[in-house]
Order: sequence, then structure tokens, then C-alpha cells
Amino acid sequence: MKALQDKILKEGKVYPGNILKVGSFLNHRIDVSFLMEMGKTIALLYGETGVNKILTIETSGIPIAFAAAFYMNVPVVFAKKSKTKNIAGETYVEPVESFTHGEVYDAFVSKEFLTADDRVLIVDDFLANGKALVCLSKLCEDAGATVVGAAIAIEKGFQHSGDRLRMEGMRIESLAIIESMDGNTITFRE
Amino acid sequence: MKALQDKILKEGKVYPGNILKVGSFLNHRIDVSFLMEMGKTIALLYGETGVNKILTIETSGIPIAFAAAFYMNVPVVFAKKSKTKNIAGETYVEPVESFTHGEVYDAFVSKEFLTADDRVLIVDDFLANGKALVCLSKLCEDAGATVVGAAIAIEKGFQHSGDRLRMEGMRIESLAIIESMDGNTITFRE
Repeated sequence: MKALQDKILKEGKVYPGNILKVGSFLNHRIDVSFLMEMGKTIALLYGETGVNKILTIETSGIPIAFAAAFYMNVPVVFAKKSKTKNIAGETYVEPVESFTHGEVYDAFVSKEFLTADDRVLIVDDFLANGKALVCLSKLCEDAGATVVGAAIAIEKGFQHSGDRLRMEGMRIESLAIIESMDGNTITFRE
Repeated sequence: MKALQDKILKEGKVYPGNILKVGSFLNHRIDVSFLMEMGKTIALLYGETGVNKILTIETSGIPIAFAAAFYMNVPVVFAKKSKTKNIAGETYVEPVESFTHGEVYDAFVSKEFLTADDRVLIVDDFLANGKALVCLSKLCEDAGATVVGAAIAIEKGFQHSGDRLRMEGMRIESLAIIESMDGNTITFRE
């Protein structure tokens, strides 16, 4: 998505440790009309696949998941994160490690909101080490739900998690794939 | 908003400690088209007030804030929560206590995303003890921004924080105000 590449070049900031800050439009300040365009693009990519639910994980996956869900006319379920182990009763639980913070959480979804009838599109803002995506896939597996694919705003191609998951058979559509970040020079995969 | 009252009566579940669970549409599974209707209602209520930014707090305020922002054609900024004290650099920080979890967090917003030029509408899913709303107001005060008012999905009227804040001069529009929750009997304020 050319408009996203342009937006990253214009507003993104690169920090040490391969951190890309896009807080001006994606995950702190939310450029709602721009995210709606991103959601529309995701809806076009997955238009004929029978998706009936979008699954994301709190927090910053929620706005783009919401936008895609609006154009696909499906609900969003977001997995919640907990650092405590006393998650009440009827939930699916999988561990997930945050790339940015390096902490391990339990991600959980209530069993009533993810079932074997679901054809799920996983949506997230970033694909870096792939751990959130794997966690969300496992939650679907726990529920017996079908993962149709994933839609990502920004994939860090140089970390190769997306390539690996595609090789394993997962459909992943990323609206922008960063091939390299060298200082403030960002190069996209075409 | 009659449709929201009906939805709460149909799908809400009351738990001990005045907990109302509306995870089926508001804060775990998100009924996107319904939230868009709620957002449209908020936009009508605050249509002529010159709001140029919506401020909410992660996590569950984000979907309804996003929906309202779409119809008001403004961006959303969400305050982030941190339990660590080492929040980097240029942020406004205020403490906030969660009603549901009873924990104290620091809520923070980057200074670049909240400024003295802003006319802010605060949006959240619940108004219970009022602490999130006060925290978000204080963040606006720190930034020199003007708080035009607040829009809340569900206000727990029996906790009287909304009444107190209205008496202090804040405009608060709640789409549903619960007057009492007695077992599973929910009564709304008219």
C-alpha cells in the first residue's frame, strides 16, 4: 500500500534495536481516516474468503482490526493480556512475548467468543518476531477455529518471521514490508 | 440511547461487586456496526463544539473512541498505561486506579500528541468511580488543552461520580446510565 509506505517515510522514526515508532498515526495518535483506508484495503484482500471474525491482541492491533472489520461487516475479538496466572474460568490461554517490551504475557480469549465455527482473519499492527501471530493462531487452534490468514499493517521483513510463516502455509498480507532500516533510511520490499 | 439499553438488558451479565460484563459487544468481542451507531450518536451530541481530538485510555475505550472519531472526522489519542516508572522522556503522566482490577497505573501521553491548541472530547466505555475520566482531564490540563466534555458508553449512575463531575461543571454525555443493578435486574436512569 503505497500510501502507507509514504506515511512511514514521512512520519516514522527509527530507534536503536530495530524499533520503528509510528505513534503519530498507528498506535498512540490514531489517524482514523487513514486507518479506515487501511481497513478497506484489508477487506479487499480478504473479500471472498468467508471470514466471519477478526482476531487481534490488545492494544495497538485494535484500531486497524476495527477498521477492517467495519468494511468486512464482521465482529472483532481481541485477546487480552495478563501477567497474572489467575485468569478466570472459561478462556483459551497462550503465552506471548512482546517484541518491544521483552516481557512474557498470557494472552486469553473467552471460549464463548472464539469457536469451531469461526473462520478467522488475524489482524495486527506489526509483524516483527511473529510471536503475537503464532500466539493468536494457537488460540484459534485451541478453539478449533479456522485461520483464513493474517493482515498486518507493517511487517519487518528483515526479521523473516513472515517469510517463515508463509513457508509453513499461512497466508499473510502485509500492507508495508520493510526490507531494511539503516539509521533513518527505510527500504521497502516491492 | 434506547438500543444500547436494550443491548445491555439482552447481553449484559451482572457479577458480584457491581461488575457489569458486556464483553459480548463492547470490550472483548466488539460489535463493530453497533459501536459505529454509538459513535454516530456521540458525534451528533458533540457536533457543534469544535472538538479537534478524541482522548481515551487503553484498552477498552479505543473501539468506541475510534467510532466517534470517524464520524467527527478527528484523530484519536489513547493514553497508555504503565506500571513501570521509567517512562521515556517527553510525556505527560498521571496516576489512575482501575475500578475493575483495583491496581494503580501511570497513564501517559506523548507531549507531541496533546497540546494547548487541542479541544478535546474524552471518550470511554465505562464511567464507574470516575478515576479514568479525572486522569484524562488532568492529562489535558497538563497539556493546556481544553476539555470540551466527555462521552461515555455506560455510566454506573449509582456510583454518582458522573453526577459529581457534572456538578463541578464538566459536560458528560452517557449513552446509557444505570441507576441500579440488583442481581440481574438492571434499571436505567431516564
